[in-house]
Amino acid sequence: MPTAVVGIGTELARGEVRDANGSWLARELTGLGAEVTSLSIVDDDQPRITHVLSRLAVEHTSVVVTGGLGPTTDDLTRNAAADLAGVRLVLHPPSLEALKARFAALGRPLSQSNLSQAQVPEGAEVLPNPLGTAAGFSMQVDRARLFFLPGVPEEMRAMFRSSVAPCIASQVAEAPMQIRFRTFGKGESWVNDALQGIEAEHGVKLAYLASYGAVDVKILAPAQGSLEAAADAVRHRLGNLVFAEGDLHMEQVVAQLLLERRLTLGVAESCTGGHLSQLLTRHPGASLWFRGGVVTYANRAKTDLLGVPKELLERVGAVSEPVARAMAEGARCALLANLGIGITGIAGPEGGTDDKPVGTVHLALATGTQTIHLCLNLLGDRGQIQQRAASAALDRLRRTLLFASEGGSG
Amino acid sequence: MPTAVVGIGTELARGEVRDANGSWLARELTGLGAEVTSLSIVDDDQPRITHVLSRLAVEHTSVVVTGGLGPTTDDLTRNAAADLAGVRLVLHPPSLEALKARFAALGRPLSQSNLSQAQVPEGAEVLPNPLGTAAGFSMQVDRARLFFLPGVPEEMRAMFRSSVAPCIASQVAEAPMQIRFRTFGKGESWVNDALQGIEAEHGVKLAYLASYGAVDVKILAPAQGSLEAAADAVRHRLGNLVFAEGDLHMEQVVAQLLLERRLTLGVAESCTGGHLSQLLTRHPGASLWFRGGVVTYANRAKTDLLGVPKELLERVGAVSEPVARAMAEGARCALLANLGIGITGIAGPEGGTDDKPVGTVHLALATGTQTIHLCLNLLGDRGQIQQRAASAALDRLRRTLLFASEGGSG
Repeated sequence: MPTAVVGIGTELARGEVRDANGSWLARELTGLGAEVTSLSIVDDDQPRITHVLSRLAVEHTSVVVTGGLGPTTDDLTRNAAADLAGVRLVLHPPSLEALKARFAALGRPLSQSNLSQAQVPEGAEVLPNPLGTAAGFSMQVDRARLFFLPGVPEEMRAMFRSSVAPCIASQVAEAPMQIRFRTFGKGESWVNDALQGIEAEHGVKLAYLASYGAVDVKILAPAQGSLEAAADAVRHRLGNLVFAEGDLHMEQVVAQLLLERRLTLGVAESCTGGHLSQLLTRHPGASLWFRGGVVTYANRAKTDLLGVPKELLERVGAVSEPVARAMAEGARCALLANLGIGITGIAGPEGGTDDKPVGTVHLALATGTQTIHLCLNLLGDRGQIQQRAASAALDRLRRTLLFASEGGSG
Repeated sequence: MPTAVVGIGTELARGEVRDANGSWLARELTGLGAEVTSLSIVDDDQPRITHVLSRLAVEHTSVVVTGGLGPTTDDLTRNAAADLAGVRLVLHPPSLEALKARFAALGRPLSQSNLSQAQVPEGAEVLPNPLGTAAGFSMQVDRARLFFLPGVPEEMRAMFRSSVAPCIASQVAEAPMQIRFRTFGKGESWVNDALQGIEAEHGVKLAYLASYGAVDVKILAPAQGSLEAAADAVRHRLGNLVFAEGDLHMEQVVAQLLLERRLTLGVAESCTGGHLSQLLTRHPGASLWFRGGVVTYANRAKTDLLGVPKELLERVGAVSEPVARAMAEGARCALLANLGIGITGIAGPEGGTDDKPVGTVHLALATGTQTIHLCLNLLGDRGQIQQRAASAALDRLRRTLLFASEGGSG
C-alpha cells in the first residue's frame, strides 16, 4: 500500500521552517503498516500543488497532505484540491457554524478571509477539526484516497488520529515485522560484510543507518519465523558489537548496567569539553549513578581538581596515556565514584603535530583495581571527533561492565 | 531558477530519522538566490529514485540529491543516477586512491563493499569528499544539473559549500539582498509585534525562525537601499536583544567578547549536566579563554570541588539562589578564572515540587567584584530546559560584558 506524505508551504520549501509534520506522519503511517515511499514539500503555488498531487494520486493509494488550509491569501491547498478533482469549492454549513461559535467564544469578529476555512471541494468528505478553525477533508482521485489536514501540528495530529488512521488501518493487510540492532565499534561496510548472505538465506531485508560511529541494522521480515531466524543469525555474527536491540541509546545501556551493579561514575574530560557529561545527563535518573564531571581545559585545572602531577604534564604532555590514566583515577577520587573515565586528545582543527595529529585521543577507565587505556585515531571535524571520543568511552565502559560480570559469574 | 532538493533513504521516508539536510540545503539555496520549489524524500528503491529524479530533471534547472552513497547494499543512488543517464558505473581512480589512503591511515582493510564508493556514472564530474569515503558527483540530465552528495551532514555541507554553491551562484541572476539578526530573550510573537510596519514602510519582507529561545529575523530586500533602511529600523527597535548580525552562535559572540577583554571563564553546572561546557568548547580556540567546567551532580561534589558549604546545601537546598551564587564563586576560584558561572535547577521530568517546579533554574555570574543572580522558570522537556538554561547563562554573560565595557568607557 504505497503512501505519500505532502507538506505545503513556501517557508518549508525555503527551509526557513523545518517540517516536523512529514516525519511524524511517516512514522505513524509506517506503524499502521503503510509503505511510505515519498515525502514531499511544495511551495505555495497553486498550479504546482495541483500538479504534484495529480502525479502522486497515480502512483499511490493514499496521500496525506498538510498545510495551506489557513485563512490568508497564500493558503491555496483547497483551491488546488478542487482544481484537481475538477469541482468547485462549496461552503460546508456545519463547519461554518463551528467557526462562528469559535470566534464568538473568543469575542472576535469573523472576518471575510476566515469564511474560506469553511469551504471544501464539492463532494469531498469533511474531516472535523476539534482544535482549530480549518476544516479538513478527504476525497478520491484516480485510485488514491487523498486526505487534507491543516499544518498546525496539534490540530493535524488530532485529526490524523481520529479521521485518517482508522481509514488507513482498515486498508492495510499486515505490517512488516521488524527488529533493530544497534552496534558500535565497526564501520557500516564492515557490518554489511559481516551480515553477507542473511537476506537471501532468510528471505528478509536488512537496512543500515550509521551515525557518529554507531551503526544500526534493521531486519524487515514478512513473518515472525523468518524475523527470529534472521535475528539469531545477526546476534551470532555480531556478538557484543551489538549494544542494544530496540531504540536505546548507548548512554542508556550504560546507565542500566551501572544501576544493576550499583556502581557510580565520575568523568574527567579535556578535548570532549563536557560532551560526555552532557550525554550521560540527557536522560532522567542520572543522579542515581552519575556523580559528576570535570572539564579540565587548562592544565592547571587538571592538577588542582584531578591531582594530575604537574611534572607529568610537563614531561609527557596533556595528550598522553599517563595523563589520561591520571585523569580517570583523579575523577574517580575527586568525585567519590566507583568508576572514573578520563579523556584527553586533540579535537582540532588546530593543535595537531606529526606525533599527535588531530584526532588523537587517549581514553582511560579506572575501576579501582585497574586502569584500562585506549588510544584512538579519530577522523572528522571537531564536533565529530568530540562525539566519537565520548561514544568510544561509553562503549569501553559498557564492555568492561559486561566482561566484569561475565568473569565474575559462575 | 527552479531548484529541487531530494533526500534518499528508507529511514527518512518512514520518519525514523528526521531529515535535516533538506531544510539546510533549502535555506542555503534560497540564500544563493535559487527558488526552491520542491523538497522530496524517496525510499531506497532504485526504480523509484530513478523515476523521481527523471521527473524533477524536467521541471527544474538544478537538483541537489543527498544520501544513498554509502557502501551497503541499500545504497542505490549511484546506480539510479547511472540508470537515469543511461550509462554504466565506472571506477574513479583518484577516489579509489583517496579511499585506500583513508583506510590505510585507519589501519583497516578496504572491503569489497567500500569499492563501490569510488564508482560514479560514466561521464559524471566527480565532487571530492574531503571528510568521508563517498565521492559525490554531478551530471547534466535534460535541462537540469544534478548534484549528488552523501547524506552525512558534515560531509554534505562541506561538499555543498566547496563544489555546489559556486556553481549555483554563477547561474543565478541576482540573489535577493538579505541580512539576518539573531535575538535572544523574547518570543517570536513579541519580536514580530516589535517590528510591525517595517515591511510596508521599507518594501522588504521579514522572515522569522525560532529555536531554543533564540529568534532569528531575516530581512529580504530587493535593493541595498531598502535593506539598509530596514536594518537600521530593526536595530533601533530591538536594541541589544540582538546578539549577532549574521550566522554567529551566542557562544561565539561571548567568546569574542571574552577574548577582546582578555578575560577567562570557568563554569559550574548541575541541571545542565555539561551542556554549557560543551557549547563553549564546540568551536576552536576555546582554550584561550575557557579554563574549564565542573559538573556537580552530587551535592558532595559541590562541596568538595567548588567549596559550596555543606550546611548551606542542607539549609536552602541545592536548587536555590545562595547555592547558585556559591557555585559561580566556587567555579571562579577552583578554575582560577576571572569569571565564574553557576547553574542549578530542576530539568525534570522528575524532581519538581510545588515550591520549585520542573523548569526552576537559578543562574549566577561571579565577576570577582560582584555576583549577579537570575531565577528562571523555563518550559519544555528535559533537553529544552537544559538548552535554554545554558543559553540564558550565556546571554547574561554577554549582557554583563557589554554593559561593563560601556560603563567603563568614556
